[in-house]
Amino acid sequence: MYSLKNDYSEGAHPQILEALVKTNLEQDAGYGEDKYCQEAIELIKEKLQNDNVDIHFIPGGTQTNLISIAAFLKSHEACIAAKTGHIFANETGAIEATGHKVIAVDTEDGKLRKENVLSVLKSYTNEHVVKPKLVYISNSTEIGTIYNKKELQELREVCMENKLLLYMDGARLGSALACEENDLKLCDFAELTDAFYIGGTKNGALIGEVLVICNDFLKEDFRYHLKQRGALLAKGRLLGIQFTELFRENLFFEIGKYENDMANILRDGINELGYKFLVNSPSNQIFPIMPNTVIEKLQEKYSFIVWSSEDEENSSIRLVTSWATNKKVVMGFVETLKNITGK
Amino acid sequence: MYSLKNDYSEGAHPQILEALVKTNLEQDAGYGEDKYCQEAIELIKEKLQNDNVDIHFIPGGTQTNLISIAAFLKSHEACIAAKTGHIFANETGAIEATGHKVIAVDTEDGKLRKENVLSVLKSYTNEHVVKPKLVYISNSTEIGTIYNKKELQELREVCMENKLLLYMDGARLGSALACEENDLKLCDFAELTDAFYIGGTKNGALIGEVLVICNDFLKEDFRYHLKQRGALLAKGRLLGIQFTELFRENLFFEIGKYENDMANILRDGINELGYKFLVNSPSNQIFPIMPNTVIEKLQEKYSFIVWSSEDEENSSIRLVTSWATNKKVVMGFVETLKNITGK
Amino acid sequence: MYSLKNDYSEGAHPQILEALVKTNLEQDAGYGEDKYCQEAIELIKEKLQNDNVDIHFIPGGTQTNLISIAAFLKSHEACIAAKTGHIFANETGAIEATGHKVIAVDTEDGKLRKENVLSVLKSYTNEHVVKPKLVYISNSTEIGTIYNKKELQELREVCMENKLLLYMDGARLGSALACEENDLKLCDFAELTDAFYIGGTKNGALIGEVLVICNDFLKEDFRYHLKQRGALLAKGRLLGIQFTELFRENLFFEIGKYENDMANILRDGINELGYKFLVNSPSNQIFPIMPNTVIEKLQEKYSFIVWSSEDEENSSIRLVTSWATNKKVVMGFVETLKNITGK
Amino acid sequence: MYSLKNDYSEGAHPQILEALVKTNLEQDAGYGEDKYCQEAIELIKEKLQNDNVDIHFIPGGTQTNLISIAAFLKSHEACIAAKTGHIFANETGAIEATGHKVIAVDTEDGKLRKENVLSVLKSYTNEHVVKPKLVYISNSTEIGTIYNKKELQELREVCMENKLLLYMDGARLGSALACEENDLKLCDFAELTDAFYIGGTKNGALIGEVLVICNDFLKEDFRYHLKQRGALLAKGRLLGIQFTELFRENLFFEIGKYENDMANILRDGINELGYKFLVNSPSNQIFPIMPNTVIEKLQEKYSFIVWSSEDEENSSIRLVTSWATNKKVVMGFVETLKNITGK
Repeated sequence: MYSLKNDYSEGAHPQILEALVKTNLEQDAGYGEDKYCQEAIELIKEKLQNDNVDIHFIPGGTQTNLISIAAFLKSHEACIAAKTGHIFANETGAIEATGHKVIAVDTEDGKLRKENVLSVLKSYTNEHVVKPKLVYISNSTEIGTIYNKKELQELREVCMENKLLLYMDGARLGSALACEENDLKLCDFAELTDAFYIGGTKNGALIGEVLVICNDFLKEDFRYHLKQRGALLAKGRLLGIQFTELFRENLFFEIGKYENDMANILRDGINELGYKFLVNSPSNQIFPIMPNTVIEKLQEKYSFIVWSSEDEENSSIRLVTSWATNKKVVMGFVETLKNITGK
Repeated sequence: MYSLKNDYSEGAHPQILEALVKTNLEQDAGYGEDKYCQEAIELIKEKLQNDNVDIHFIPGGTQTNLISIAAFLKSHEACIAAKTGHIFANETGAIEATGHKVIAVDTEDGKLRKENVLSVLKSYTNEHVVKPKLVYISNSTEIGTIYNKKELQELREVCMENKLLLYMDGARLGSALACEENDLKLCDFAELTDAFYIGGTKNGALIGEVLVICNDFLKEDFRYHLKQRGALLAKGRLLGIQFTELFRENLFFEIGKYENDMANILRDGINELGYKFLVNSPSNQIFPIMPNTVIEKLQEKYSFIVWSSEDEENSSIRLVTSWATNKKVVMGFVETLKNITGK
Repeated sequence: MYSLKNDYSEGAHPQILEALVKTNLEQDAGYGEDKYCQEAIELIKEKLQNDNVDIHFIPGGTQTNLISIAAFLKSHEACIAAKTGHIFANETGAIEATGHKVIAVDTEDGKLRKENVLSVLKSYTNEHVVKPKLVYISNSTEIGTIYNKKELQELREVCMENKLLLYMDGARLGSALACEENDLKLCDFAELTDAFYIGGTKNGALIGEVLVICNDFLKEDFRYHLKQRGALLAKGRLLGIQFTELFRENLFFEIGKYENDMANILRDGINELGYKFLVNSPSNQIFPIMPNTVIEKLQEKYSFIVWSSEDEENSSIRLVTSWATNKKVVMGFVETLKNITGK
Repeated sequence: MYSLKNDYSEGAHPQILEALVKTNLEQDAGYGEDKYCQEAIELIKEKLQNDNVDIHFIPGGTQTNLISIAAFLKSHEACIAAKTGHIFANETGAIEATGHKVIAVDTEDGKLRKENVLSVLKSYTNEHVVKPKLVYISNSTEIGTIYNKKELQELREVCMENKLLLYMDGARLGSALACEENDLKLCDFAELTDAFYIGGTKNGALIGEVLVICNDFLKEDFRYHLKQRGALLAKGRLLGIQFTELFRENLFFEIGKYENDMANILRDGINELGYKFLVNSPSNQIFPIMPNTVIEKLQEKYSFIVWSSEDEENSSIRLVTSWATNKKVVMGFVETLKNITGK
């Protein structure tokens, strides 16, 4: 049984593990003040072509979201997010647990647009309701879609015009950047958001995310927030060493590319067999729709999530690829599906 | 320059790293539902000789404390802790940030005793003040002292008589258990506390702590709390694999023993040279008092924390040993000190 | 300009003011431990025909909701409410500010039904999302509708079957109980909810609400929560004296009846002139739909809220009556409307 | 039995009640947007000789403290307060419940001084502990002492030099201002603090406190905080009408004077009989020390709080006067004590 359930079924990219082994006995400072964290920060600033950002390493994505948003907002301020947004749909009320409402908006493809933001602002106008202050987006989104530059710029504008912060969850940013249709570069996010994070866990790391704070007003005292919420690891080097590997050369980007290559094999193969997709997702998550009978046969050899029921006889499934996805397996998946489909 | 600053200056015990490398390509479930977490849970239950506990793996100590205490307490309930207690002195108000007051008590040796608890209860008796509900202790304490069985039993009794919960922070439990004067066994804590945690980070792991919930009333829905506070790692296997190694045989205990052995060399050597100690700490943290001139000379070769100023000419320093502490180095430290002292 | 904007435009019922004046110089205990609070509690228990409830007086409605819900829920537990529910729509994220998500459900008439609750439960089933635990309803609702006994019983059943708490916001319970079509008695709520509150502010009091806790498990230490959230007034007598007046005889119920009588005059008159209503609301809030031209003319003599735009030419307005609404004025309103309408 | 327990045993000053009665039927806007709130704001600004402040009316003192402090601080920031300070000693962890630590300092007379603040700052210097940000003082203090101008100026300076906010709880400011030895004027507090509140409840009002925000950076969106914490009363006029009466002429100050006059009769009489005091408190709370046998005899006719045990045979008691304290009674108290003392 091979799993295409998610992009965190395996450990870390071998190069990262190697680095951990190689540096293991070196003595260094705790709590992220070690030389590897420092090196990783420098490397990432280079990739961002931007020296005017603050960078912090945080063990997980939910933690990154909740610490950042809680640090950035005052108690009466709220987030705007798509209904599929991770902070609304998958984080056990983590944001609300820090005291902030998440105003959720229906979207077709998991992407927030200018109109969505303006529509929320129109109905939140006085002190009897919360004050929308932060726009949360994810790229790629939870359903695999990605933002293009024009969309992001428009969001940025509507945010600036309305004194809103723009925050991007980049748990799967590596894959988003590697999409063929993507026209955004890593450095664009430092220009177009107030803060964003670059996901490590789902892009080859064992653990860890990179928070990039671009807006000067949000930078002060951030390490206090990390410590208070339990995100300042004693052996912070664990994060520094990994991100040094991911960003010394281009490993981070290569992994995103590889994930997409594997997804493309699946997508193209499934497409050729005539199946539709729930959503046009160019990244490492794809959502083909198939007869339940076909799905059951696939499940004999592959594990994956059945995402949604389309009608009585058909469902969508979610297939996710990772740095470790075996090329032969995904080719085999297509072959198997071909046989099941009888084409 | 060799660091005796703390027990998290190096990476993980090699056996742990090896296990991470060996299992790296295995596919497994996310969020702590993998087979290694399950195996580690079984192993730890065996060591505890207790099947009636719930076990969770959490990345860090502050996170473990704040999630547990916030989950266990209602909003008007408070903790009692020693003034040196980590939750009062070193966690950036993490407990208060979840809404709970920490009532701090002066102690001589970092240990809370029955009398301290009773004294707090006497002055917190109505709804104009918080309701003390949880007694927080650490073992070993933040200044290296350890509880004996009688002290722990007395605390347990006063807690039961007053409907208080007893929670133990075992960030350095490995070293505490390995002290010569220790008369507590790992399984005792499952009997005598409502919940406690076994520290991994400071006992050979790369990252990770083991929360053991003993009181049935505190077990329900605990994974919700983990997720909500950002402690449920996608690659939860990272914790499971490490603790499987630490508890499959006796690695956890051996590391505690080694740390103490290294500390003993330092303690005995320093003692023989006639120096006093701030506190009689039998574990892997020792606090000798020395003339500032001696300290300065030591600092040419070793790095450590100058803990407290005793008078104008003398200070205490903190020396900490770890799984990776080099025996030759600690012997060299004593030798160097001998030379400086001129004996 | 006469206001039909809301039911809190005037002060208190004269009988209440008189009682405040009469008792003014009596010395009594602070923080709700005075004899008037005690007397009011006894009187309300009599009206409820129920001695097994805990009763607390709280200055305002938002405060009552937030203190109760925060006291009743653990941090990972959430509320279910109608989208029009006060806690979701009008309290500035007060519930979220205490850490709890409010799961909002679309409804046609502001009333939650069994099906709504079951539908939420179906999609909240694991620790990656919050755990629904409390069903919030208001009676009358924010758009003037009321629950009948069958609906409330069904909600109660679905709550009991799924270990949910049922909480009712009775800010306008006086008016709800006095509706002709109402088949619920005050005592029913003590049987059918876990906690509910009886609104004073919108039913003749100067300030104050009565929280009734029916579920034994929710009673403990409640005064701590009151104090911690700032609801324990030093001169708590202010609340006790008022509710003694409202419940010594039947003033509370008479006020509800009077409010409805005044609303009925408006409703019947508007109805006879052929206008439709946004919703069939039998209580003291009505929402007729009128041409914008008519509304503008009415606004020359009366102030009220324009509630929603129905189409380009028509809107709904909200008319609210109170204990102080002048009968001649509401009759005059109908007359004026008749003239404007030209019938 | 006459109570000298506190200054909230009776209702409101008759002039205030009269105003409530007189205005009762007037229609006005809700939520503090009525003309009386507006008028009271103007009157208070005049008394403060300061137009550049924001003024809000809040039902109670604990509520005022918790809303202000929570609004002013970020999550990692903490308060500094005397151990006797109301927020530390008497508010059920209300501040901690909003997420902020209160750093408590031992003082002899309930007053924080420059040195206390500097000493705290010295030990809170990095992200492993909270960041002290707000200095909380009360005037008069919880034990009846008052600040003089020099002390307040020094606190102000140390705050400005260290970017700390200075917040004053003026629950008993009326009495403080009326002390003979007082050299501060109401307008001084607007110059020397970032925010402070003027107590109504303990100075003749039925309910209500006046928050004055002086620092421009703390003003924005404050009504959101009021609403979110349940402090925006629907019938906000209740507060506006009262404070209009208290500040239209000098009623507020006259009440403070009267309270002190009554306390002076007690203080002088007790002093003449040779009794010592726990603390030299010039305001409306005094703490004489007496033999327990004398106290018991006094308790036959008067109720008051036995404050602290001085030794086996002597205790201090707390006597508090209010706007309603009967002059004959306090003179009678002295007479009674004279007889008991046998002088």
